[in-house]
Amino acid sequence: MTGADAMTAAMRRALELALRGPRGVNPQVGAVILSPDGEVLAEGWHRGAGTPHAEVDALSRLAPGAARGATAVVTLEPCNHTGRTGPCSVALIEAGVARVVYAIADPGVRSSGGAERMRAAGLDVKAGLLADDATALLHSWLEVQRLGRPHVTVKWAQSLDGRAAAADGTSQWITGPAARTDVHRRRALADAIVVGTGTVLADDPALTARGDDGALVPDQPVPVVIGSRATPVDAAVRRHPHEPLFFDGPDLVAVLADLRERGIQRVFVEGGPALASSFLRAGLADEVLAYIAPVLLGGSRLAVGDIGVDTIGDAARLTVASVARLGDDLLVVATPSPTAQEGAA
Amino acid sequence: MTGADAMTAAMRRALELALRGPRGVNPQVGAVILSPDGEVLAEGWHRGAGTPHAEVDALSRLAPGAARGATAVVTLEPCNHTGRTGPCSVALIEAGVARVVYAIADPGVRSSGGAERMRAAGLDVKAGLLADDATALLHSWLEVQRLGRPHVTVKWAQSLDGRAAAADGTSQWITGPAARTDVHRRRALADAIVVGTGTVLADDPALTARGDDGALVPDQPVPVVIGSRATPVDAAVRRHPHEPLFFDGPDLVAVLADLRERGIQRVFVEGGPALASSFLRAGLADEVLAYIAPVLLGGSRLAVGDIGVDTIGDAARLTVASVARLGDDLLVVATPSPTAQEGAA
Ligand SMILES: NC(=O)c1ccc[n+]([C@@H]2O[C@H](COP(=O)([O-])OP(=O)(O)OC[C@H]3O[C@@H](n4cnc5c(N)ncnc54)[C@H](OP(=O)(O)O)[C@@H]3O)[C@@H](O)[C@H]2O)c1
Ligand SMILES: NC(=O)c1ccc[n+]([C@@H]2O[C@H](COP(=O)([O-])OP(=O)(O)OC[C@H]3O[C@@H](n4cnc5c(N)ncnc54)[C@H](OP(=O)(O)O)[C@@H]3O)[C@@H](O)[C@H]2O)c1
Repeated sequence: MTGADAMTAAMRRALELALRGPRGVNPQVGAVILSPDGEVLAEGWHRGAGTPHAEVDALSRLAPGAARGATAVVTLEPCNHTGRTGPCSVALIEAGVARVVYAIADPGVRSSGGAERMRAAGLDVKAGLLADDATALLHSWLEVQRLGRPHVTVKWAQSLDGRAAAADGTSQWITGPAARTDVHRRRALADAIVVGTGTVLADDPALTARGDDGALVPDQPVPVVIGSRATPVDAAVRRHPHEPLFFDGPDLVAVLADLRERGIQRVFVEGGPALASSFLRAGLADEVLAYIAPVLLGGSRLAVGDIGVDTIGDAARLTVASVARLGDDLLVVATPSPTAQEGAA
Repeated sequence: MTGADAMTAAMRRALELALRGPRGVNPQVGAVILSPDGEVLAEGWHRGAGTPHAEVDALSRLAPGAARGATAVVTLEPCNHTGRTGPCSVALIEAGVARVVYAIADPGVRSSGGAERMRAAGLDVKAGLLADDATALLHSWLEVQRLGRPHVTVKWAQSLDGRAAAADGTSQWITGPAARTDVHRRRALADAIVVGTGTVLADDPALTARGDDGALVPDQPVPVVIGSRATPVDAAVRRHPHEPLFFDGPDLVAVLADLRERGIQRVFVEGGPALASSFLRAGLADEVLAYIAPVLLGGSRLAVGDIGVDTIGDAARLTVASVARLGDDLLVVATPSPTAQEGAA
């Protein structure tokens, strides 16, 4: 019988295979089929929506009957859902697989239940092998499943007294180089950068992620502009490596649903104040990044506008995850406190 | 001749003696007269404006001629100024003192020059013994001399987005218990707490410094209310251990000059927003304490209002001295950057 070491090695391999698939609407999943002796019979991974799931991909590489008595090692619980393909649980049962080991459970309402079905069919099913690694791998995808929409970070730069710009609108270099470097690093971790037309028209931002040398980093987020006003034909965002997405607004739930459909898991909202406040007001900010410059500006150009709080008891309470000094500036990273989030469990 | 050890011991004693005098308009100064053998002949200290300076106080305890050939050890350079008393430098010369050792120089324009005068008269004059200790002892007084007015700390509590209160004016407990404890500790270090009539009428604050148990701490700052509106007869501030001071405003320079005349060296401005902004706008804030609660409020009740900045180049730049987490809150302690301070050397 296949030993624990062979199983762990197969799961590590399956996690590697998973990464060959694209981040997107569907999870990245890898699978390895082991013979009863622990030999690798086949490997598979998921290549994105509309293509076979990892287990089926692996099985398809075997001659009929070759998987009889085998062990399937999969990074995610085999699905129980008939979509464009049949349920993977059924495919494994029908292939005569004797044992299934997976890392983490399928969080989907319609797709989960695969483990149960296979157990009912007499297979030996085990969960939890290298679960932490698989959770890390699917972190963003799992969040999308949990939230029902992409994860949203709302970022702004402000003076200590909460202004986004001086009275005359000038705001260049409120924060310093270390803060800007940090922003570019975080942009590269997002799938999309979102701004309002106000920011596009005022600042003409490129919305690219650049390294310290000013060169584009390999992973570029998709630029997204929200608002009914037209983006000029010569706007810098139109020269972004990715075709920008334009939404009329103001329905941010609809925008996020559309972005999710496009496989976007992490959204980085970079303002301006009107759009950032709308995300906050709608309870659509999962993380807040406030870059605070040690300056006082006064005046009416606020970094955060009306967010629908009338009285102190309704304040949007945050939990501070970290406070860092970036050059002369501060970065406060915070998440909405559970009590402050509408509808939170 | 008196050895170095005896001299240092005498200076330590003089620093102790200095502390017997009151903090106020005049510096706290101590003096010890040593015989040529290093024996203590007399001690003295300054008891406040209108009373003899420390050296003269010590000399007055000796029989005529007893100080001949002696060493005077003084915490501050003997003065050269004829005020209510004659210059101390002349008193020491006339008493026949052979040597004078002092810790730090007199920063006064009219009073300095004592060392030079004594040297010209043939005395052996040395400066700098335990200078750091003497500087620490006179820290606040020296700042008053440097600034030409009391040192001003402007403190406020704000939400992350720079609001002092929610839209309906409610602001109780924006910040938590650790921040409030810190405020009380710092109140006790100030000589006066200053608020505007707006705060008195809205919050009816007691303006006392209390310990964690709610009990008054021994040193209480003097409460100061600025504004033309009357403070109610039953206002909490009227039950403060010190008689409150009332100023019509709005001339803050005049208020500070008056407070200096009363011997107040450290002023703690606790708002509200209008008064705090006026201190900032006038360049009268030497230190800023922003207690930042991890909440977002939005709305128009800003912690800092107009401070006279029109364009980003004129921003009031601060140097962050420290950032501390106090419970859930942050405390940013900052000082105006030299370039941002009008008229700074
Ligand atoms: N400090 C910072 O971090 C920071 C960041 C970015 C920008 N800024 C500054 O902010 C200023 C621009 O401010 P802004 O507030 O006008 O910019 P904005 O938030 O980028 O744009 C606001 C516009 O977005 C559109 N929009 C679509 N859906 C919306 C919704 N649900 N809620 C709100 N707006 C929605 C509307 O445009 P339509 O009218 O076209 O429909 C709205 O007028 C510039 O001066 C820029 O320099 C500062
Ligand atoms: N978050 C915080 O840290 C904090 C701290 C304190 C208060 N608050 C809140 O702030 C609100 C009160 O705000 P506020 O701004 O009206 O209070 P304020 O600054 O305490 O009082 C303003 C008043 O001070 C007088 N004043 C005299 N000289 C002045 C000068 N040079 N500049 C400005 N004012 C001068 C004027 O009163 P006259 O009209 O009488 O001449 C003026 O109306 C309350 O809701 C309170 O709860 C918040």
